[in-house]
Amino acid sequence: MLATNTFRQFSSMANNSSKTLAKAIVYSEFGNPRDVLRTATYPVPKCSDSELSVRFLASPINPSDINQIQGVYPSRPPFTYEVSPSKPSAVAGNEGLLEITDVGEKLKKYFSPGQWAVMASTNLGTWRTRTNLTSDQLIPLDKTAFPSIAEAATLTVNPCTAYCLLQKIVPMNRGDWFIQDGANSMVGLAAIQLGKHFGYNSINIIRNRPDVDQLKEQLHSMGATVVLTDEEFMNRAWMKENVGKWTQGGKVKLGFDCVSGRVASEMAKYMTDGATMATYGAMSRQPLPVPVSLLIFKNIHFHGFWVTKWKSEHPQEYEKLVLEIQELIRTGVLRSANSKLIDLHETADGKTFYDTFLNAIEQHGKSIIQFRYD
Amino acid sequence: MLATNTFRQFSSMANNSSKTLAKAIVYSEFGNPRDVLRTATYPVPKCSDSELSVRFLASPINPSDINQIQGVYPSRPPFTYEVSPSKPSAVAGNEGLLEITDVGEKLKKYFSPGQWAVMASTNLGTWRTRTNLTSDQLIPLDKTAFPSIAEAATLTVNPCTAYCLLQKIVPMNRGDWFIQDGANSMVGLAAIQLGKHFGYNSINIIRNRPDVDQLKEQLHSMGATVVLTDEEFMNRAWMKENVGKWTQGGKVKLGFDCVSGRVASEMAKYMTDGATMATYGAMSRQPLPVPVSLLIFKNIHFHGFWVTKWKSEHPQEYEKLVLEIQELIRTGVLRSANSKLIDLHETADGKTFYDTFLNAIEQHGKSIIQFRYD
Repeated sequence: MLATNTFRQFSSMANNSSKTLAKAIVYSEFGNPRDVLRTATYPVPKCSDSELSVRFLASPINPSDINQIQGVYPSRPPFTYEVSPSKPSAVAGNEGLLEITDVGEKLKKYFSPGQWAVMASTNLGTWRTRTNLTSDQLIPLDKTAFPSIAEAATLTVNPCTAYCLLQKIVPMNRGDWFIQDGANSMVGLAAIQLGKHFGYNSINIIRNRPDVDQLKEQLHSMGATVVLTDEEFMNRAWMKENVGKWTQGGKVKLGFDCVSGRVASEMAKYMTDGATMATYGAMSRQPLPVPVSLLIFKNIHFHGFWVTKWKSEHPQEYEKLVLEIQELIRTGVLRSANSKLIDLHETADGKTFYDTFLNAIEQHGKSIIQFRYD
Repeated sequence: MLATNTFRQFSSMANNSSKTLAKAIVYSEFGNPRDVLRTATYPVPKCSDSELSVRFLASPINPSDINQIQGVYPSRPPFTYEVSPSKPSAVAGNEGLLEITDVGEKLKKYFSPGQWAVMASTNLGTWRTRTNLTSDQLIPLDKTAFPSIAEAATLTVNPCTAYCLLQKIVPMNRGDWFIQDGANSMVGLAAIQLGKHFGYNSINIIRNRPDVDQLKEQLHSMGATVVLTDEEFMNRAWMKENVGKWTQGGKVKLGFDCVSGRVASEMAKYMTDGATMATYGAMSRQPLPVPVSLLIFKNIHFHGFWVTKWKSEHPQEYEKLVLEIQELIRTGVLRSANSKLIDLHETADGKTFYDTFLNAIEQHGKSIIQFRYD
């Protein structure tokens, strides 16, 4: 009954000439993205007095977005008839940069067309071209702060995670050390840059690869103090010989782990008594095998960090953090690196829309879909 | 040179008729207890003006004492010539109940012969009959509080650990739950009794065994809310069916782990979001394989607890805690259970002394050596 009623309403809305057609990547059940994702085309009416019309400029494809589609992520979007009258669906994606295109009468003193904004919370669906939002669903940005669209589009997940890991887990002083695996992940790169800004030293672990010297050089240039391959790092005799030379008695108070498994438990061995390891990912898909002696005798704490939960519990603090990161981008502290912008025009047909997203998803890259408009 | 000089001094001391001969279990290198332990016989002079002469009434054999002898424990006693002029040695044992036998002139207004006391810190050597101590090395007890010597002799390690686990890890309210493995360990039994006293519910995991119903009954009678064998507990379908019926929406905020390995990571799955697991032992000799989703999405914290470190960092609080536990014993809240008292007379020869300790060590039991005097 609901589907039919909603369909009638939707059809009548679609006939209204003041509506713009938009496209979104949606799903109605959890599963393999190739199987469950589809393109939906839907009309976006003129915004109401208390709404904003927006168009997305760029929407990143984050690993957590893919996990969410697969149904293995604890945060799930509601399935609604908003963009798909045939069956309840969710628009995929959680992060994105949007531009305000029209402002409802009551909001005209606060917003103006052309302004940029990011999402104030998750599960609003960002893999789409256009929608209407209420003002509490977005956080306005100052677009003059951003050297490129990539920095603004990827501001709310990875730099926020890195900032929280550095500043909200344990008290750190200038000169203190942190150690991280997956150091060339987007969070890792942000942590290196922010860490340098805060005066912290870092030991950064990356996977060995053919062009490893080039990657090491890049991380050093961003502010990494020490960069090691996982092979170097797992060589305990070599590490014992060198780690003291690097840290010179400095305290490794903090660890960030997005790999888990043996590398993570090895990291904990080089941390100072009473230090905290914060795990925010598990790229190895392994549990974290904690040596009990580190718990009992070295008093190492093992915590997790989930930025989605932090945001939902601290919405005001999150908004402040977005603006603080905006300023760190403006002043050149933070730069987006290694992300790949993929163009997609709003007039692309449904199949092109789907294919563009699917290719980006399956490349496991750090891709951002950049929507183009005439 | 030092050994020779010390030996001369020792010989001359031994000839002084005011000295009492004492025996101790000592070691001069770390290793297998059977290989490295020996009996030392040494004179104890009359205490100085600012000392107390004491005789040990009962000294438990704790697993950590054995680990210390093996050299696998991070806290190590100093090796000195105190009881062994031939080579630097340490007296084994860290916990013990002693009786004051003589009081130095300056301490007479504070202490009197016959008073009981426990050790104020570790590494003082308690597997011995007699010694002289300074007043800051002991915490006096009120012997009328204790129904038996066992309660007083085992007060400072296991009940202190259980108390700290229950009261100093996370804030708990009456009606909250904790879950623990090794529930019939000495710490586990103390946690059950103290937990009941504080109004907490508990899920207690024990290894399956032939007389398991009897053990379950004992734990229930001490205050356990739920008692499960590890086999019952590892049956996830059965647990999912039952755990909600037991807790009725109550929060499992705290976990105590002395086993580690799979049982410990399984325990964490039944804990409430944001709960803390405190590991204080690793009977399985396995690391703790932490599922990363529990860290990130359930925000479970994994900490360790080491009572030895806590005592050394909080000596005043520790002294208060000893006296608080004394009162909990006096009022019947806490009872020592399942410990085995083994008699040993101070006049026993060196071989009997050694054999008695070695047998107790190798039985891995909860043994207390009870020293007898004429």
